[in-house]
Amino acid sequence: MTSKSIGTVETQYFTFAKEAPFTLESGRTLGPVTLAYETYGKLNAEKSNAILVMHAFSGNAHAAGIHAEDADLGWWDFMIGPGKALDTEKYFMICVNVIGGCKGSTGPSSVNPKTGKPYGIDFPLITIGDMVKAQKYLIDHLGIQRLYGVIGGSMGGMLTLQWIATFPGSVQHVILIATTLKHSAQQIAFNEVGRQAIMADPAWEGGNYYEGTFPSKGLAVARMLGHITFMSNESMEKKFARRLKDDTTDFKFCADFEVEGYLQYRGMSFVKRFDANTYLYITKAMDYFDLSDGKWIPEGGLPDTRFLVLAFKSDWLYPPVQSQEMVRQLQMHRIAATYCESDSTYGHDTFLIEKEAEKQSHLIKHFLAKGQ
Amino acid sequence: MTSKSIGTVETQYFTFAKEAPFTLESGRTLGPVTLAYETYGKLNAEKSNAILVMHAFSGNAHAAGIHAEDADLGWWDFMIGPGKALDTEKYFMICVNVIGGCKGSTGPSSVNPKTGKPYGIDFPLITIGDMVKAQKYLIDHLGIQRLYGVIGGSMGGMLTLQWIATFPGSVQHVILIATTLKHSAQQIAFNEVGRQAIMADPAWEGGNYYEGTFPSKGLAVARMLGHITFMSNESMEKKFARRLKDDTTDFKFCADFEVEGYLQYRGMSFVKRFDANTYLYITKAMDYFDLSDGKWIPEGGLPDTRFLVLAFKSDWLYPPVQSQEMVRQLQMHRIAATYCESDSTYGHDTFLIEKEAEKQSHLIKHFLAKGQ
Repeated sequence: MTSKSIGTVETQYFTFAKEAPFTLESGRTLGPVTLAYETYGKLNAEKSNAILVMHAFSGNAHAAGIHAEDADLGWWDFMIGPGKALDTEKYFMICVNVIGGCKGSTGPSSVNPKTGKPYGIDFPLITIGDMVKAQKYLIDHLGIQRLYGVIGGSMGGMLTLQWIATFPGSVQHVILIATTLKHSAQQIAFNEVGRQAIMADPAWEGGNYYEGTFPSKGLAVARMLGHITFMSNESMEKKFARRLKDDTTDFKFCADFEVEGYLQYRGMSFVKRFDANTYLYITKAMDYFDLSDGKWIPEGGLPDTRFLVLAFKSDWLYPPVQSQEMVRQLQMHRIAATYCESDSTYGHDTFLIEKEAEKQSHLIKHFLAKGQ
Repeated sequence: MTSKSIGTVETQYFTFAKEAPFTLESGRTLGPVTLAYETYGKLNAEKSNAILVMHAFSGNAHAAGIHAEDADLGWWDFMIGPGKALDTEKYFMICVNVIGGCKGSTGPSSVNPKTGKPYGIDFPLITIGDMVKAQKYLIDHLGIQRLYGVIGGSMGGMLTLQWIATFPGSVQHVILIATTLKHSAQQIAFNEVGRQAIMADPAWEGGNYYEGTFPSKGLAVARMLGHITFMSNESMEKKFARRLKDDTTDFKFCADFEVEGYLQYRGMSFVKRFDANTYLYITKAMDYFDLSDGKWIPEGGLPDTRFLVLAFKSDWLYPPVQSQEMVRQLQMHRIAATYCESDSTYGHDTFLIEKEAEKQSHLIKHFLAKGQ
């Protein structure tokens, strides 16, 4: 693994459903639909080296490299680049912001062409299935018949599973990280508390806040809760324990423990980059997602697809047992699946932590190379 | 165990610090201080059969029996009564609402004698130490020199530990249930999200909402989150799984999963009975509590005190490792401690679940009887 970055990158945009609208799983339609995406590396002549990277809940298309305008580094830069796990000297990497998102793809903060104003919650409910169908328009547009790989962690793993379910046989290598075939009651419950925190903020205004004050306080509370679930009890203890902050105020309920300050900081920085309605739409899509009946694997199996399933022992939000269930279903269909459970103590966030990259990189690099 | 209830009970009130105020750990003073309390059973002539029951975070003095005015059943009625684990035919049970509370004891919603208005956040910060010192006034008033027992779960366990620390040698039997010597970073983090949810509600108005609208939405969000942490992943899955509610609405983000409806219901019913400022004060007192240095056990040990420590395997909020640490510290001082870890799948809430009462009752009954 080198630390070479792919350098400056730009987000690109692809618009489809300009005339005939895109029909969603709910039967409702949407159009035109824009997808924000980035690509890294070069598509070969056979168009056989493309790997689709699916982002997690709060991710976006900017997975690697640096944006010239604000020096923003991609969220998986330590994994994607020359010589890295997802080697841009070999592979053509594609990352697309999901529909319903707020980072360039059509979502609730986009302008509704019918009204000239942001959709707000007039935006139709979308599913993980709708998200991957939208991405397929881009993959077709790029002229890619078959993907060399699809990879994703957390919600990115759900998108990956859904890609297989919707387009079986369209991928050679599938990498599923810290994900699930369905949310448990507890996972739904955490999402619901986040949604309620947003909707409890009077600034949310029934979703029509784009011309006024954003529901920052509610969204920050939702994100603070999220961060607790992304970390393990152990990693939180290592990072903060019961240490007090130096810069406390006289206010009785100020953040005097470091962990409180950290959560508040994460909450407040999140509201600057994320849309509250997108939080509602995407968490709901995750909660509705359910491939647990096993039908995502076609009757005849997936003879030309290989699977790598990664889970983290300390991940209590998407516990290993949920990854093991995918492996079990694959094995029932006699499909080869490599399962690795890492001892990392970072919890669900492990796949986004650079310190842990070496272990993941090694596995992913070898898994992708073997199939060549 | 019989199902006999002690019948109708009444909350009583005891006021101290009428002239000289009560000095808090912070150095600030409070007075007069009223304690709401209930007693069940009869104090014997020697005043040697009293057991103090410490309530958990959202509990109150009404631990057993029924209130005539609203038929409200005590929160531990299945444990306290004739022939029950805490047998009112043998013991004189006392339960006191903590100071800072909102159920009859002096707290932020009480009238500040200096202003004639509710304290709000002018109420001084209180500690678990302050809470037990206040309770001692009542125990002295009742003429009890030595308690037969002190028992408490969760925050009630912290109060119990603090009682030992502050008044060593004043108790014969100590029962600690699902508790800790200090909150971990994660426990502080969950509390902080709850506090932020309350303070993010504009109706909170810096704590001065008593003459206006209560910050119900923020408090409900805090309680919803609490309920997730009180249950185990398994118990939540058993109770709700991914079942959908029958009575959903057209609203896109209505509670359509049963688990969402349950949390919303628990949130909304909590706000009817609990004060938001009390939530802030008491969670902060719990977060500040720290007896982990072992000094709660005096140098000479506690020769006349016996300990029963109960933990629940599925309790991820106050995991068994925290109870084991108490036992370890006791053993370092050669103090007898019986440790029981229950297989219950109900999580932290186990001690409040009647179905699980039989196991607990058996242990507690024998532990208390042995010392007679």
